Formats: sequence, C-alpha cells, structure tokens
Amino acid sequence: MAKSASSANVGNMVIGQSGGPTVVINQSLIGAVLEARRHKKVIQRVYGALHGVQGILKQELIDLTDEPKANLELVAGTPASALGSVRKKPSAEECRAMFEILKAHNVRYFFYIGGNDSAETAHIVRQVAIEAAYDLHVFHIPKTIDNDLRNTDHCPGFGSAAKFVAQAFMGDDMDNRSLKGIKINVIMGRHAGFLTAASALGRASKDAGPHLVYLPEVAFDEKQFVEDVKKVYAKLGRCIIAVSEGIADASGQAIAAKFSKEVDSHGNVQLSGSGALGDLLADMIKKSFTEKIRVRADTFGYLQRSFCGVISSVDAKEARKVGELAVKYAVEGVPEGTISIVRKKGKGYAVDYKLNELGAVAKLTTHMDPKFINKEGNNVTKAFIDYALPLVGDLPKVGFLSGKKVAKKKI
Amino acid sequence: MAKSASSANVGNMVIGQSGGPTVVINQSLIGAVLEARRHKKVIQRVYGALHGVQGILKQELIDLTDEPKANLELVAGTPASALGSVRKKPSAEECRAMFEILKAHNVRYFFYIGGNDSAETAHIVRQVAIEAAYDLHVFHIPKTIDNDLRNTDHCPGFGSAAKFVAQAFMGDDMDNRSLKGIKINVIMGRHAGFLTAASALGRASKDAGPHLVYLPEVAFDEKQFVEDVKKVYAKLGRCIIAVSEGIADASGQAIAAKFSKEVDSHGNVQLSGSGALGDLLADMIKKSFTEKIRVRADTFGYLQRSFCGVISSVDAKEARKVGELAVKYAVEGVPEGTISIVRKKGKGYAVDYKLNELGAVAKLTTHMDPKFINKEGNNVTKAFIDYALPLVGDLPKVGFLSGKKVAKKKI
Repeated sequence: MAKSASSANVGNMVIGQSGGPTVVINQSLIGAVLEARRHKKVIQRVYGALHGVQGILKQELIDLTDEPKANLELVAGTPASALGSVRKKPSAEECRAMFEILKAHNVRYFFYIGGNDSAETAHIVRQVAIEAAYDLHVFHIPKTIDNDLRNTDHCPGFGSAAKFVAQAFMGDDMDNRSLKGIKINVIMGRHAGFLTAASALGRASKDAGPHLVYLPEVAFDEKQFVEDVKKVYAKLGRCIIAVSEGIADASGQAIAAKFSKEVDSHGNVQLSGSGALGDLLADMIKKSFTEKIRVRADTFGYLQRSFCGVISSVDAKEARKVGELAVKYAVEGVPEGTISIVRKKGKGYAVDYKLNELGAVAKLTTHMDPKFINKEGNNVTKAFIDYALPLVGDLPKVGFLSGKKVAKKKI
Repeated sequence: MAKSASSANVGNMVIGQSGGPTVVINQSLIGAVLEARRHKKVIQRVYGALHGVQGILKQELIDLTDEPKANLELVAGTPASALGSVRKKPSAEECRAMFEILKAHNVRYFFYIGGNDSAETAHIVRQVAIEAAYDLHVFHIPKTIDNDLRNTDHCPGFGSAAKFVAQAFMGDDMDNRSLKGIKINVIMGRHAGFLTAASALGRASKDAGPHLVYLPEVAFDEKQFVEDVKKVYAKLGRCIIAVSEGIADASGQAIAAKFSKEVDSHGNVQLSGSGALGDLLADMIKKSFTEKIRVRADTFGYLQRSFCGVISSVDAKEARKVGELAVKYAVEGVPEGTISIVRKKGKGYAVDYKLNELGAVAKLTTHMDPKFINKEGNNVTKAFIDYALPLVGDLPKVGFLSGKKVAKKKI
C-alpha cells in the first residue's frame, strides 16, 4: 500500500479543523503538526487553515513550521479548535477553488480534522486533484463528540465529552438526593444518543441517576415518558432524567421542533444553545402531577464539548495518535484515507489504529447499537457501560454515609 | 471567652446541612464529625440530621459516631449534602419543637451548616435553649456558593463554584473563537453577583471573554445591554456575556420575572432550573441585528454547585477547617457562634478564622463591593480578580497559536 518515503511527494502541508469543537481536537492538530515536522525533507512548510475550508478559500493560512514546541503542547491541552472552525460544507465548485489554492501554495499534503462532512470534503478535494493529475495526499482525521462516525469503534472527542456528562450526572445525582425532586438534563446529540447514554457511566449506587435515559434512536412518546417518570418518583421520591436534544416522535419529528419556533433557513430546528426543550419537558411533568412537585431542567449546552479542564486521558492520547498516524501514512506515500480505531479483543481496554478509505467515513453516520438500549427504550444496558466506560478515563470517587438510624424518643 | 474543657457539657451532638448544596459542604460536615470524635469524653454520640431541620422535627437522625473514617473521607470529597438538605426556615414554634427533640436525645451540641437563614435558625434554637435554661452549644457553619454572608472575607463553597464557572468560560471563550458569534451564559446568584463575576477569573488573553458581565447589583437596562453587545461584536466579531440569573431593572424587578410565568406561591420567580432568561436575552439581541447573527444562550444551572470533580483545593481546605473549628470552640465551652474567614494583610493569600456572633451572619446578606464593578456597570475590575482568584485554586493552562500569516498567492 505504501510507497517508499524516498519517492514521496515533496511540498507543503495544510491542516484544518471543522465542525463543532471538542476538548481534544487540538491534540489531533498538534499530533499531526509535530509528526509533519519530523519529515522536513518531504513536508517543507506546515500551514494551518483558519476556520477550515473557509480559510483555504480566503487564503487565510498561518505558518506552523517554526511554532515553538512548548506553545504547541499548551495548545494541545486547550479546548476547542485553535485554528478556528467552520460549519461550511463546500460545494464541488468550491472544492475545485480550494484545490487551485492548495496547488498555488505547492501543497502536497492536506489534512482535515472533523466529522463525516469533513471526510466528504476531503474526498471531493482528492477527486479534483486526481482529475487534475496532481499528487495531493488527502487525509481525514476523525473527531466528534457525537461518536457517530462509521467503521470505527469510537471517535476522538467523545470520551472527554462523555466524561463531562458522566461527572455532571454524578454531581447532579448527589444534588437531587440532597433536595429531592424531578430533574431533567438535556444532552447534545441530534441523531445519535451516545453522549446522552454517557450520563449513566458514573452511577455510584443501585439507586443512582439517571433513572431514565431518552435517546434519539427510540421514538419518544409523551404519555410513556410521563408514566415512566411517575413510576420512578413513586419508588424513590426523586427522578433524574437524561434526554437527548434530538429526541423525536414515531413520525421522526423532533420534539424540540414540535414546539419551537426557532427554525433556520434550511428548516433545521436549533437544538443547542437554548433551554426550550428542557423547559417543555418540565412542563409536561408538572402538568401531570396534581400535587406540587419540584421539577427542574438543565440544558448542558456547549460546556459538554468545550469545558476547560475535564479531559479523558484515553481520549487525549487517541486524538493525538490519529493526527500523528494520518501524517505518517501520508509521508509513507499513501494518497488518501482516514484513521479508524479498532478495539482489541479480550479483557482490558486496548486499541489498534487502522487506515481506512475516505468513503468509509464520508456522508453517512451511525447510531447506538440496539444492544446498548434496554427493552423499554428508556435506559442503557450493561453492554453500553462496558463499551463506553474505558473511553472516559478515571472518574472521581464518591461516597455515601451508611445511615445507621438513631432510635426515636417519645417527646 | 472559653470555659475549660473539663467544665464542658457532656452529651450528644447533632449536625445538619441546609440550603443549596456545594461541592465542599461535606468537607465541613466531615471536619466537624471527625473533630467531635476526638472529644469522646464531651461529645458521646455524633448524630446527623437528615435533610436539616426537617430531620430533627421528624426525628430522622443517623449515628455517625462509629462510621468508618475511610468512608467519611470519601464523603468529604463528594458533592452536595451527604445528610440531605432542606429549603425550610422553621417557625419559632418549630424551633421550640426542635429544641424538645434535641433535649430528649440529650443533645448538648448543635451544628448547622448553611447560609444566613441557617444562622438565623441556629440563633433562634439557641434562644429557646437559653429561655429553658438548658445548656445547648449552637454553632452555624458557613456555606454558600453565592458568597453573600456578612462579616466574612468569603464563604466556603464559593471558591469551587467560582472555579467551575471560570473553567466553563475559559472553554466557552475558546469555543466562541472557533465558531464566532454572540454567546450568553446565565449564572446562579439571585441577589449577589460574585459567582457571575467569577466568569472573568480565567481570562487568558486581552480579548478573552466574558466581554460583558451583568450583575444583580447593577440595574439592567435592555437598551444599554444591546448597545454594549453591538460594540463588542463590531470590534471582535464575537461576544461572550456573563449574566446573573438575578439581574433586575431600575425598579428592582427581576428581568426573568418580567417575562416568566413561573411564579411560586410566595411570588418568587423560579430563576434556576430553567433556560427562559437566557433565551429571552438571546431574542433581544437577535431582534436588534438586521443581519443574521449566531446567538446562543446557555444556562449553567445546577452544575455550578454540584459538578463532580471540579473542586478548589483552597475552598475544600477552608470548608473542612470551619467545620473543625466550630466543634473545637464548642467543646472548649463557647456557647454559640459562627466561623468567619479573615484574609491576612500582605502579599500572598493566607487566612485566619474568627469566632463570630450568630447575629453577625443571621438574616441579612451582602453584595459585591462597588470597587469590584467597573464604572459602566458591565464588567468587573482588577480588584475583583485580585480578591477572587486565590479562592479558586489552580486553573488549567491554555495556549494560543502565534498565528504567523502565510503570504497570499495570486490564483
């Protein structure tokens, strides 16, 4: 598969970041940049595109060839996209324009860190280069907190976001024990429920929340929801609920869309950055109780993807590695690809990395495996915990008082 | 002031927790419990009241005298109130009923961890005991993320909540650089703006957010708000705004109340656990721009007070200490009091602890010192940063790419 390094194309490199940031996307960036700088005979200058494809189209490139290593390491530990990100999916014409700019800068290596749309962009740019008979090595480097890329065990970025969500629920469960009531937490993830499911990873006891987990993979039924909540509340006197922002009814209509007036020009409902869904679900519950119940809703919002200081060490390491590997393959002469993560069989957590076709990741996404969801469709299974727990690294330890009762006195 | 230990009253102890939890309130609990267990000749049994005064009134007490120390230490590091909390402020009659129950259990030491209402409860219970000529040592142990107790430099619980808010804004600032737009974050604090002001503690560069900070201490003016935001946006192409949930107009009416229908039986608007204020402010901004601008609002909610794993080491240590000291004073024979924190003069951060009268903390609260707020009323001053930064412990380090531009090519 690999050409020998001596026959590799000599030229410059461009790397960009795309889509929603994560707290480890800069690990991938710095992993790739530092790896490229180990191959100075092949990669002459290392450029970063500001705000992804937009930076290429506008020729807004910065030179990372001589950026001090200590600074790069600081950036690696910094949340969000150090180069700036973009939500743009370029048209075929724009991909051609990008190609012309890359060519003008003698770019032979193009790396794009992002989700499935970014893989597709990389794929198209590669096609344009082939048509022009120009040797351009194009690699996609995976990232997404949604964990919904295809043909990979999991995605860099997910583990750290999952850790944030798990720790948030660990604390919220304790808070809800202190002051009992019904608590709804709305979690990011429009179509895939992995991050919402991660709410269960820190459960510290049998009666720990979340007690109910609603995923976009399962049709949401208001009646069933209210019944589920009432059942838990009757048993525990409290109830913590994890809800994906993307929950949809049996017809596929997002619950947020049903009631929200916030629809953008493409007809997409804005799900994040608004507390509307949480407030709506809280109202459903309040209305269903005749007695006065304490009901609260929090929407975790952008903290999930960018909170500074909560990072999964496993995730950080893997994000670094996929960045490094993409460059390694490219300088070995591999013309295109993406890096997938393969979990090794057997006890204990270990992974291999695999070179994959761009097309294996581009366009489509994946969802929660049905084995990760309970029969009732309102919780996750042990199979999910086993799958996801190794990805978040260490979680804090919590404790409970044993609660030996003092005999009552007659007053 | 102190009686000798030999003359101390021998009997049992009750400790309870009240009000909104913090991530270090259990440090105070465990500090007090372990200190009490060092004085077995004076304090015979150590009881915890479940859900504060409610647990006393219902005689729901647990015995902590023989709780394994390792378990207590785990609990000390666990967020929220391990004994359960309560929002109840007992009536004078209920305070009398509590006194009868404490007496029946031969309780001579009563400790109540909470805010100003808890200090008042302690104060009343102490008065009832005095009237009954019953020796009951009553201490308030301070906690509040709002940092609004009187006669103390700061309050246990604030530093950790401030750390969470600071780290959240550090990440959110990076997120907002990645995908530019206007971002509003709503922070807890009904009357005091300390926690909202803490949003500024992690600013990592001159252009770092929050760019605007709106506090309950300053009358909120919608027109001025929109103008402020437009000014920052025109300059930076982005704007991060910290808003207290308690912002109120010049007449003192909460902005959330103006538009919210969620008013409880006492006429209090529910501020936390709903995204309404953030959504409302986002709408104000969207309407004021003719062009399409990316505007998002997050409401940090309960994560601020209970997030598991983000703890200020300074705060944890001080919370532990005030719990220990309350018990120390009590077994020395001091009949009543609360523990205040006094910052030592001079360079570097160091504190002393001071025994204070219950009345010095009960009932009233305090606000942000005017010197902590800028002239325009839309930001905090360096004086605030100097005051609050030592309380949050270490913050994560972040980095920026130096951004050396690549010359554009003619295409």
